[in-house]
Amino acid sequence: MIDNFIYGTPTQLRFGKGVIKDLPEVLSQYGKRVLMTYGGGSIKKMGLYDEVLRLLKDFTVVELPGIEPNPKYDPSVITGAKLCKEHKIDVILSVGGGSVLDCSKAISVCAKYDGEGWDLISGKVKAKAALPIVDILTLAATGSEYDCGCVISNTAILDKRGYLDELMFPAVSFLDPQYTFSVSAWQTACGTADAINHVLEQFFSFPNSLFNDGIMIAALRSLMTNVKIAIKEPTNYAARSELMYVCSWGCNGILANGSGYSGWPMHSIEHALSAYFDITHGAGLAIITPRWMQEILSERTVERFVTLGKDLFGFDKKLSDKEMAQKVIDEFYAFFESIGIPMHLGTLGVKEEAIEDMADHILANDDTSQDWAYVPLDKAALVRILKASM
Amino acid sequence: MIDNFIYGTPTQLRFGKGVIKDLPEVLSQYGKRVLMTYGGGSIKKMGLYDEVLRLLKDFTVVELPGIEPNPKYDPSVITGAKLCKEHKIDVILSVGGGSVLDCSKAISVCAKYDGEGWDLISGKVKAKAALPIVDILTLAATGSEYDCGCVISNTAILDKRGYLDELMFPAVSFLDPQYTFSVSAWQTACGTADAINHVLEQFFSFPNSLFNDGIMIAALRSLMTNVKIAIKEPTNYAARSELMYVCSWGCNGILANGSGYSGWPMHSIEHALSAYFDITHGAGLAIITPRWMQEILSERTVERFVTLGKDLFGFDKKLSDKEMAQKVIDEFYAFFESIGIPMHLGTLGVKEEAIEDMADHILANDDTSQDWAYVPLDKAALVRILKASM
Repeated sequence: MIDNFIYGTPTQLRFGKGVIKDLPEVLSQYGKRVLMTYGGGSIKKMGLYDEVLRLLKDFTVVELPGIEPNPKYDPSVITGAKLCKEHKIDVILSVGGGSVLDCSKAISVCAKYDGEGWDLISGKVKAKAALPIVDILTLAATGSEYDCGCVISNTAILDKRGYLDELMFPAVSFLDPQYTFSVSAWQTACGTADAINHVLEQFFSFPNSLFNDGIMIAALRSLMTNVKIAIKEPTNYAARSELMYVCSWGCNGILANGSGYSGWPMHSIEHALSAYFDITHGAGLAIITPRWMQEILSERTVERFVTLGKDLFGFDKKLSDKEMAQKVIDEFYAFFESIGIPMHLGTLGVKEEAIEDMADHILANDDTSQDWAYVPLDKAALVRILKASM
Repeated sequence: MIDNFIYGTPTQLRFGKGVIKDLPEVLSQYGKRVLMTYGGGSIKKMGLYDEVLRLLKDFTVVELPGIEPNPKYDPSVITGAKLCKEHKIDVILSVGGGSVLDCSKAISVCAKYDGEGWDLISGKVKAKAALPIVDILTLAATGSEYDCGCVISNTAILDKRGYLDELMFPAVSFLDPQYTFSVSAWQTACGTADAINHVLEQFFSFPNSLFNDGIMIAALRSLMTNVKIAIKEPTNYAARSELMYVCSWGCNGILANGSGYSGWPMHSIEHALSAYFDITHGAGLAIITPRWMQEILSERTVERFVTLGKDLFGFDKKLSDKEMAQKVIDEFYAFFESIGIPMHLGTLGVKEEAIEDMADHILANDDTSQDWAYVPLDKAALVRILKASM
C-alpha cells in the first residue's frame, strides 16, 4: 500500500565523466558573481580547485575555504552569509562533500535574511528566499546533493540542528564519480555505511509495498556489492559510479514515498555519539545497526527481517522467521566488519560511563519514545542498544 | 555502471486519499483564472467534475471538454490555446488520463506562442515559455503526470508527434487512487501493460547496473502483481495505489538514468499499429512484447533475459541461459493473456496485408534500424515481429 505523501525534488543531476565542463553555462543562468565554498585541501590536491577557477575565469569568484566537518554556524555560516551580502553574490558553488554542501545550504537562506540566521536554522522563523546553490560533489555519502536538508552546529549554545526547507534544494548537482577515486578506504566504508543506514531507516516503517521494498533492496544490494569493489580498486569507475548515484537517493524521501516515517532512530542515537565523542557518523551508524535490529526484533517486526533475508540475501526460505531474522542481523554485522569498520564503540573512544547521559540527551533532542515511531525507544531501550554496541 | 546522464523532474506529486482538498491552495500560487480540460463524461459520472467546480468556486473557470484519446492538434490544442489567450488564463487544470494531460501540455506552450503552434510540436521552433499545468489523474498508465512529453496527432497532414520540452513538466500532479476504482478491467489491463512496456523498453539497454536493474524489476513485480488484484477487486486501495504510483515512474527516465537509450522499438511498432488500425496502445504493446523479445534474443542479449528469469520470476538457476530466456518470453505471453489481453493482432482487427506498409511507415517515422539502437530492427525484422504477432 502506498499511503498519502507529498514529494518533489527539483534538483537537476548532471552525472558522469567530465560533466563540469558545463559549469560556466549552468552558473551563467544565475549570474556572474559566485561564492565558492570548500573545506580542507583535498580539492586542491586532486586538481579540482584549479580546474574550477579555470572554468570560471569570466566570473567574479569570492572564496569561503575551510568549512569544517560538522559545519559550524559560527564562523562558517555567518561568514558566508556576510560575504554574499557584501559581494552581491548571485549563486553559491559548493565544492566538496556533504559538510561543505550543508553549510552552503544554510548560507543560502541566511544570505537572504536580515535578522539573526540561527532563527531560521532553529526553526523560529520560516525562510522566505534563498540564493541558488550549485554543487560539485567529491564524496558519495550523505545525499545532501539531492535533498533540501542540512545539519548545522552552534557551538556557542551547544546546539546541533537538522534543518529542512524546500528553498535549499540544490539547483544543479554535478556528480563526477572520478572525484571520489581518491577517497580513502575508511571514508568510502563510512560514507557507504551512512547511505546503507539511510535506506534501513526507511525500510523499517509501515505501510509497505512491493515497489518500495524492491527499490530499497536494490539500493542495499548495489551499495553492499559496490563498496567492496571500490575499497579494493579505488579507481573502479563502475563501482564508484553506482555508489555515487545510489547515495544520492538516500535522503530525499523517494525510496519510501507513502511508507510512513519511521523516526530515523539510529540517526538519533548516532547524533548523540558524535556530539559526545566526535566519532565518524557512518562508523557510528554501522556499529549501532545490528544492535538496534536486535532490540526491535519482535513478532510485529519480523516480517521486515524476513523480506531482507529472502530478497536481499537470498537465504533459504525454509528457515523459520526467527532464524531468518537472526541471520539477517548477523549478516549486517559481518558485512560492516568486512569493510573495515571496528564493530565496537569502545574502539572509537566511546566511554561506557557516558551511556546514561547520552540516552537522556537523545530523548531530550529527538524523542525516540513517541508512539508514532516504528518502534518507540524509551531510555531503557536506548541504554540496552548503546551497551550492546560497546 | 552508471553512464553519463542529465536528469531532473521538478513536478510535485500529491498522492493519496482526499488530496484534492488542497487544489485551491495549489492553484492560487499561479493565479485565479483556470482553463479546466477534460475528456468524455467519466469525470462527471464519478462526481469529480462537480467536486472540482465546488473547490474552485472562487476561481474563474473556463472549460475545454471533449478532448479525444490520441488528442488532436485541430481542434483541441488550437481551441485550448485560443481560450487561454482570450481569457488570460493563469494555469491549466487537466482532469483525466494521459490524453487529456498530453493535450494540456501542448496547449500550455501554444498559449504562450504567437505563431502556428504546430511549429513548436513538430520541433521547428523551440518554445520559450509555457503556462503552468496542474493535473488530477484518473487513469494509471502513461506516466504523463511525471514527465515532460506529449503525443499529439495532426490529422490534416496525417502526422503524429512525440514532443518533449522541460517547460511542460506538470507543476503539481494530484494522484488519488480512488479515482481509478471505476476504470474497467480492460483499461486497467491495457494501462498496466503500457507501464510494463515502458519499463521493458528501458531494461533492454546498456550499460546495466545492479541498482537500475533492481528498481526496474521492483516496478515490474509490483505492476504484474497488483494489476491482477485490481482486476479482481477494482476498489482494492492497496493495489490501485501501487499501480498509480509505479506507473508515474515509467517515462521520465528515472528508472534507467545512466543506462543509455534503447530506442523504444516496441513503441515505434505500436505507433504504426495504432495509426493504421486505431487499436488500444497498451494492448498492442502487450501483443508485440513477447514477439519482439523472441526476435532480439541472441548471445549478446541473453543476459538481460537471464536477469529477469532469476530476479523477477525466480526461475531455477540451473537452467541454461537459453532455456531461461525462453521461459521468460513464455511467461510474459502467459501473463498478458492472464489479464485478458487477446494475444493476436488479428483479433483486434489488424490485417496481415498491411504489414509491409506498416514496416515502411515505422522506418520512415522512427528509424528502428539505426545502429545506436539496443538491437537495430530492419524491415525484415519488423515484418517478422508483426507476422508473429498476428
